Amino acid sequence: MTIYNFCAGPAMLPTAVMRKAQQEFCDYQGLGVSVMELSHRSPEYMAVAEKAEQDLRELMAIPDNYAVLFLHGGARGQFSAIPLNLLGQGKALYLESGQWSVAAATEAEKYGDIERVDLRCESRTLDLSRIPADTSEYAYVHYCPNETVDGVAMFDVPEVAAPLVADLSSCILGRDLDVSQFALLYAGAQKNIGPAGLTLVIVRRDLLGNADSRCPAILDYQLAANHDSMYNTPPTFAWYLAGEVFQWLKHQGGVAAMAEVNRRKADKLYGFIDASDFYRNAVAPSHRSEMNVTFQLHDAQLDKRFLAEAEAAGLKALKGHRMVGGMRASIYNAMPEAGVDALVQFMDHFARTYG
Amino acid sequence: MTIYNFCAGPAMLPTAVMRKAQQEFCDYQGLGVSVMELSHRSPEYMAVAEKAEQDLRELMAIPDNYAVLFLHGGARGQFSAIPLNLLGQGKALYLESGQWSVAAATEAEKYGDIERVDLRCESRTLDLSRIPADTSEYAYVHYCPNETVDGVAMFDVPEVAAPLVADLSSCILGRDLDVSQFALLYAGAQKNIGPAGLTLVIVRRDLLGNADSRCPAILDYQLAANHDSMYNTPPTFAWYLAGEVFQWLKHQGGVAAMAEVNRRKADKLYGFIDASDFYRNAVAPSHRSEMNVTFQLHDAQLDKRFLAEAEAAGLKALKGHRMVGGMRASIYNAMPEAGVDALVQFMDHFARTYG
Repeated sequence: MTIYNFCAGPAMLPTAVMRKAQQEFCDYQGLGVSVMELSHRSPEYMAVAEKAEQDLRELMAIPDNYAVLFLHGGARGQFSAIPLNLLGQGKALYLESGQWSVAAATEAEKYGDIERVDLRCESRTLDLSRIPADTSEYAYVHYCPNETVDGVAMFDVPEVAAPLVADLSSCILGRDLDVSQFALLYAGAQKNIGPAGLTLVIVRRDLLGNADSRCPAILDYQLAANHDSMYNTPPTFAWYLAGEVFQWLKHQGGVAAMAEVNRRKADKLYGFIDASDFYRNAVAPSHRSEMNVTFQLHDAQLDKRFLAEAEAAGLKALKGHRMVGGMRASIYNAMPEAGVDALVQFMDHFARTYG
Repeated sequence: MTIYNFCAGPAMLPTAVMRKAQQEFCDYQGLGVSVMELSHRSPEYMAVAEKAEQDLRELMAIPDNYAVLFLHGGARGQFSAIPLNLLGQGKALYLESGQWSVAAATEAEKYGDIERVDLRCESRTLDLSRIPADTSEYAYVHYCPNETVDGVAMFDVPEVAAPLVADLSSCILGRDLDVSQFALLYAGAQKNIGPAGLTLVIVRRDLLGNADSRCPAILDYQLAANHDSMYNTPPTFAWYLAGEVFQWLKHQGGVAAMAEVNRRKADKLYGFIDASDFYRNAVAPSHRSEMNVTFQLHDAQLDKRFLAEAEAAGLKALKGHRMVGGMRASIYNAMPEAGVDALVQFMDHFARTYG
């Protein structure tokens, strides 16, 4: 039976990447040791690290005036690092569209003057007109284009004068974006890049060098940039796996090709849900995530049975986030279209049986 | 040819652990997915996480009044976390015995009043009599029992009244220690535990809850303890591999059994070096590391040839730290005695050829 893993994160990785990593797990390129047993300063590992950065730069068309940092931890670390590096004595604006952007704002409040604008409306849409017309007074504006808990996305890049910071943890490399519109992009790896324990930061170099005097060294972007992300021993195996994912993405045709597949996968699933009386998704169509498709059964008493039968059919981890319940199918880059087809087929069968 | 990897870190992992991890890399316990693709909140992953903690508690006889935290990053993150959690408005004392304890003190100075005592003497020994007799005024005393760069160890636990904090990154689980003598122990994983990107913190619970108001959430021990190290998504694969290493250690007979092998390995190597005119180690015998054996060739012009021939003989990563040069054989728990035998045999052959 083919298993399809819809976990929101740590999420599935491309099957081809996992098989290759397994094959060379104990013997990387004939060296007789694992890539995770190599010194991060060895020429063999440096080549892995540099290729990963180059491939990412190519995939995202990252301009030269941006540093690409491979850091420890997840996005939560960056919730602190961003104000510690960019806030100075100024104030910042946080746009709230879901659990993660709210959490980022709450953490940032430790470090200075944070203003928050809640974009969420009762009709499960986002009202971008609430964004202040003049943002020039802010050190930066922060937002999260894809919120995994409710499956809410903000596809339009907010038009702000202030440096724009975006948490791409759950949507990086899922569709094209113009890096030059942003001051800083960041993403925990465990959804669309690699295993948990690695975070990418892409930051315009002119913003570096202003870290708070009490910024922990491991969160100081300038220090990381000066040392090519090797101020301390990086999470070498996660970095290597991320690099393998980048190579796989290039073989798939890059981000534009993935975006096409992602759009098709999401359309298929939302289309099925909308056409059904048995399932529903309440998010406004223009703000529906292509990465995390949430849905509810018309009768929540069937939830347990749905999950058990899905699991038995090889469709794993469909349970919604514990804060909101219901179901959630996370369909990042690594989820093949066949996985969505299998899910739709199962949902249809389940609805016919219990509807 | 058998390969022996003497890298100081990321270091080799036990061969049996690596083979098992390879075997189940794409299919953990018949689930059809990798352990790194499991939600950290799934029952299957929670069992992995809990077993790792229980096995570590057993191996180190950790009393119940200590929390065991599995955190992101390396020891450098803890250089900041320790003062941010323990310093308060007080002052702390840092004992300096090498590069790492100095770096820890330098980072701590960002956060308050830090006093430093350099224990290093010109004769490459440590003078513990320099430790102030009365330390009761300090919030804590920090030291590093094993310094990897010079291969210098401090085997006696300093007798201090203040809470004692130790960086065990390069010696944890290498010999027995009495956890109750310490307020906090910490260790980056990549030397004696698992892959880079995981750090263990073992901390007396009564010390929690006093973090600085500007402590990043990911460095707040109380938050980590409250959430069983899952306040954010932990580095799940590294945690799993650490757990596999703990199981392997139990099968080897636990820490006492490893300590015996480690003592034997170190004695063999130092014994050979001391008996030779060709090699030398200048560290005072009572402070020689059992984990990182540094040595110099009598003629540094032979260094390159030594490294090239060692590599050709399957003995990898013997180059000393870039700050001090010479050679370094890191012989952590995962290095079998046969690896040390092979190294001694090679060194002997090399000395006879070029001596």
